[in-house]
Amino acid sequence: MPIFYSSELTNTSKKIQIAGIEYNHLKNTLRKREGDEMSLTNGRGIHAQCSITDISHNEITIQVNRISFQEKTKPHISLAFSLLKKNNELIIEKCTELGIYDFFPFISERTVKKSASSHQLDRLRKIAISAMKQCDSVYLPEIHNPIQFNELLEFFINKYDLILAWEEEQKTSFSTALEISKKDMCLVVGPEGGFEKSEVELGQKFGAHIVSLGNHILRAETAAITICAQVIFYQLQQNPSYY
Amino acid sequence: MPIFYSSELTNTSKKIQIAGIEYNHLKNTLRKREGDEMSLTNGRGIHAQCSITDISHNEITIQVNRISFQEKTKPHISLAFSLLKKNNELIIEKCTELGIYDFFPFISERTVKKSASSHQLDRLRKIAISAMKQCDSVYLPEIHNPIQFNELLEFFINKYDLILAWEEEQKTSFSTALEISKKDMCLVVGPEGGFEKSEVELGQKFGAHIVSLGNHILRAETAAITICAQVIFYQLQQNPSYY
Repeated sequence: MPIFYSSELTNTSKKIQIAGIEYNHLKNTLRKREGDEMSLTNGRGIHAQCSITDISHNEITIQVNRISFQEKTKPHISLAFSLLKKNNELIIEKCTELGIYDFFPFISERTVKKSASSHQLDRLRKIAISAMKQCDSVYLPEIHNPIQFNELLEFFINKYDLILAWEEEQKTSFSTALEISKKDMCLVVGPEGGFEKSEVELGQKFGAHIVSLGNHILRAETAAITICAQVIFYQLQQNPSYY
Repeated sequence: MPIFYSSELTNTSKKIQIAGIEYNHLKNTLRKREGDEMSLTNGRGIHAQCSITDISHNEITIQVNRISFQEKTKPHISLAFSLLKKNNELIIEKCTELGIYDFFPFISERTVKKSASSHQLDRLRKIAISAMKQCDSVYLPEIHNPIQFNELLEFFINKYDLILAWEEEQKTSFSTALEISKKDMCLVVGPEGGFEKSEVELGQKFGAHIVSLGNHILRAETAAITICAQVIFYQLQQNPSYY
């Protein structure tokens, strides 16, 4: 059974009311009953063992029996990706499963899709919740509102190590950049048509490490999933209990 | 412009006729004309610079001007994956982009989809061609007919290093298994519900290394893409020109 999500859960919660999608999932899909046990997370590291005490026509009341906390290992990994025509959902789903901490969609020169409606962002946030639950994770990544590429660089300066994947980079491998990275990091992948050279140079001015992901050209969404899968592999090489 | 595919191209070809899907792509999608240049591969390492000499109502004749050969670096990496209810296409597309050499779909205890029609396999092969072209690669992976999991193990014994990802493995990391692997390798990922313990034990009897992909539970198709992205990262750590 998957873990369930409530943003209201804290480390002192005794009772929680569950409504909306989670209510539907518990009552109508899984046909849970009073007395049944279940796990709950707040998406910020808390894992609660609970039992269902009451099911009404629009909400479920649960009692919290036991609470534990799972620390998110440092460094935290974030992903900045150009909004894509399609496949934004695929990126969010797969990279949430892999444990990405924050998503920063952005718009650069060659980005075709220049904005995302609040409906589309809500949909991405629902996909992240579903991926977190499916994978029994207790961290829900934040999906930030899309910003321009240069704003992204300004926002990140001195906060994160920026690592930007570029298909024309020949010298620096991703692994080399990871070896010198010392802070929380943000991985950056471009749109379907790639970054403009001037954007890569701007990234460099803001301290980004420009890296190659190897000798195959990857589609934008494949590059996003690949760089996340690879950074997790690297972190596990350094620390097998990396979460 | 993508590279085009013809299985008939050899290292002595002078003229090639192109029909079917590739004809359509060149003539109707890209509106190529006589005299235009294009690249062609046979999916087995040959890259040919060509020019179009004739366009008829059902085929294009091209002249081969220059031929080069791209060696596929050792070790060759193959992927064996349980047939999934959906998402087989996603695995083939993404892992072809990453440079997987052979795909071996299989059926294990908890595999829901117990067979694939020749139509479905054809579709997977078309997706592999499209991914190869899109990524400017010159290697087309072979997609083998599905077999039973135990037949897969028998087929592979002494041929490949088998590395099997299992979500219950606690001790051995993927990276540890890669360090001791010396041959071409086949990565193995299970179905939506995972492998039975008895299947993992059978794998071990056949010499498979059982590995963990980390501390997050991944969906079956995410595990497949992740393990391929990670093995490529590892090979690039050993040899930056790995292709």
